Amino acid sequence: MRVFYHFEFSRRSLVAALAILVPVMVACPGAWAQTDPLPSWNDTTSKQAIVEFVQATTKEGSRTFVPPEERIATFDQDGTLWVEHPIYSQVVYCLERVPDLVKAKPELKDVEPFKTVMSRDREAIAKLPMHDLEKILAATLTGMTVDEFQGQVSKWIASARDPRWKRPYTDLTYQPMQEVLKFLRANGYRTYIVTGGGQDFVRVYAESTYGIPPEQVVGTIGSTTYSYDKDGNPILTKEPKLLLNDNDAGKPEGIHLMIGRRPVFAAGNSTGDQQMIEYTEAGEGPRFGMLILHDDAEREYAYGPANGLPDTKVGTFTQELYDEAMKNGWIVVSMKKDWKRIFSFEP
Amino acid sequence: MRVFYHFEFSRRSLVAALAILVPVMVACPGAWAQTDPLPSWNDTTSKQAIVEFVQATTKEGSRTFVPPEERIATFDQDGTLWVEHPIYSQVVYCLERVPDLVKAKPELKDVEPFKTVMSRDREAIAKLPMHDLEKILAATLTGMTVDEFQGQVSKWIASARDPRWKRPYTDLTYQPMQEVLKFLRANGYRTYIVTGGGQDFVRVYAESTYGIPPEQVVGTIGSTTYSYDKDGNPILTKEPKLLLNDNDAGKPEGIHLMIGRRPVFAAGNSTGDQQMIEYTEAGEGPRFGMLILHDDAEREYAYGPANGLPDTKVGTFTQELYDEAMKNGWIVVSMKKDWKRIFSFEP
Repeated sequence: MRVFYHFEFSRRSLVAALAILVPVMVACPGAWAQTDPLPSWNDTTSKQAIVEFVQATTKEGSRTFVPPEERIATFDQDGTLWVEHPIYSQVVYCLERVPDLVKAKPELKDVEPFKTVMSRDREAIAKLPMHDLEKILAATLTGMTVDEFQGQVSKWIASARDPRWKRPYTDLTYQPMQEVLKFLRANGYRTYIVTGGGQDFVRVYAESTYGIPPEQVVGTIGSTTYSYDKDGNPILTKEPKLLLNDNDAGKPEGIHLMIGRRPVFAAGNSTGDQQMIEYTEAGEGPRFGMLILHDDAEREYAYGPANGLPDTKVGTFTQELYDEAMKNGWIVVSMKKDWKRIFSFEP
Repeated sequence: MRVFYHFEFSRRSLVAALAILVPVMVACPGAWAQTDPLPSWNDTTSKQAIVEFVQATTKEGSRTFVPPEERIATFDQDGTLWVEHPIYSQVVYCLERVPDLVKAKPELKDVEPFKTVMSRDREAIAKLPMHDLEKILAATLTGMTVDEFQGQVSKWIASARDPRWKRPYTDLTYQPMQEVLKFLRANGYRTYIVTGGGQDFVRVYAESTYGIPPEQVVGTIGSTTYSYDKDGNPILTKEPKLLLNDNDAGKPEGIHLMIGRRPVFAAGNSTGDQQMIEYTEAGEGPRFGMLILHDDAEREYAYGPANGLPDTKVGTFTQELYDEAMKNGWIVVSMKKDWKRIFSFEP
């Protein structure tokens, strides 16, 4: 039932969009070439679908028009807006924070899992079990004030380098997606990040990196506690208590919590984004769901296991998700075929 | 230390504001009268302080200038934007929902506390202990989908009447505060509600009542659970699990969670707002803290117990809070003296 509805809607939407667009493009053939809003995209159906959707939802008087206040677009971050392989950047942050942590608390030097991290033995670190990883996350993401944490993350963002490209992590955003963010905003959409990463972590660089302000970052949320420092100044301390795990079903829950409106446009790249896209598509009127498929080992990484791509635990895109996308009319973007260039630093 | 800092800042801010304003007002004496942004306020120091603060923080080049993206203003709702006596409107909603609830689940008819509520015995209802009240809140605020809840609240908002004024509750907003909201927005501020009331409850009417969209309502938050209905459509169900009690210290915690920026301007009316104002005032640069004192029994209600006003359990404004406000330079607004009219329906 749901599947049928989605497919039907998608077809209707496309027809409606074409009905609007074809006359416009015939009338002004030159205008299009001059103002291509997505220059890093190849001229494939994916690009066409994005452009047509935005035009269809912003043309006043059209039956697919979406009022400006309802133009909410949500984007997963890891693997959708920036590189997530071989491991999420926030996990790299946590591991690279350990030396400073041990400096401040020397007694941790001989305690696992900090001892293993300090050994710089990559193989041993990669084998750390989940409960050890959680100890590292808790120790590096909680216990400090919100202001201290912002300072620590800012410092890391400015100095850390990805080992493959030797560049700051914030350089490793996908230029085609940056263009989608800007194109949507230029058309009255408000762009939100809806990430499994830490809300406070992503907020530190989201505005300078994506043009997305802190209040439009929805992420995994830990509680804070309000108190006073020794001088009586108010402080907020980050606590190791989870309020929202912003993955899978947590994404629509987080969207409701933080935005209180159903998105019109949602983009992701893994099974963790499926519920966000389902929730988006289940609203009335025009909706857009999109998944990025990492199928470009040469320019970035290749992983699925959809379409026979290598399996992965980081950003898994299963064949089931792929089939669901096809059935529902969600756009699956091939990095290899749809993206002319991936990073802004490429020629 | 903190106290001294606040007082110092407040004085400096005022001097700076006057330095800017006096020449402007001398140069264009006519302009002021024509464009009074706060016509429902008497010409007292409270009104002057608001106008001067907004002008000082929006004049480019001024050392008190606040960039537009940082212009966050937070408002408590109950007792600050609308009437909260004799009891919070949301509690009235919960009590008035009980008949529908019993209709849907007849077995509740003979179960306390629903039996007492169904008896319409006001005295007995007023005496219900907290754990009984909590049962009523849980039964009327959780267990349904988010969409069902929105429908139930919308219906009530449209039909319910306050017993004193015989008007919809949404008519009982304070016209002077509506003017402050509009004045701030006209000057690039984003206005947020930060309420102890339910976030989902207030979101239903905040846009039409205050011009504040759902994503700018911060309130007490319960979790939701994502699942599918019998037709496979995604639904979010409201759960009786508290994520944030948005009162007292919960207000700055909620502001951090939902906005991720410290407000520049904060307004409240009770001890539940003290931490929000402290947190706001502790930021660098110009800050504005304001408390409404309900001292007008004739036109609205009179309660404190500050300044010898009658004591109350609903919206308590203690003498300690009053003294703190005086020490810190927060503006205490007297409804009686500062407000020319209270409601828009007054002549």
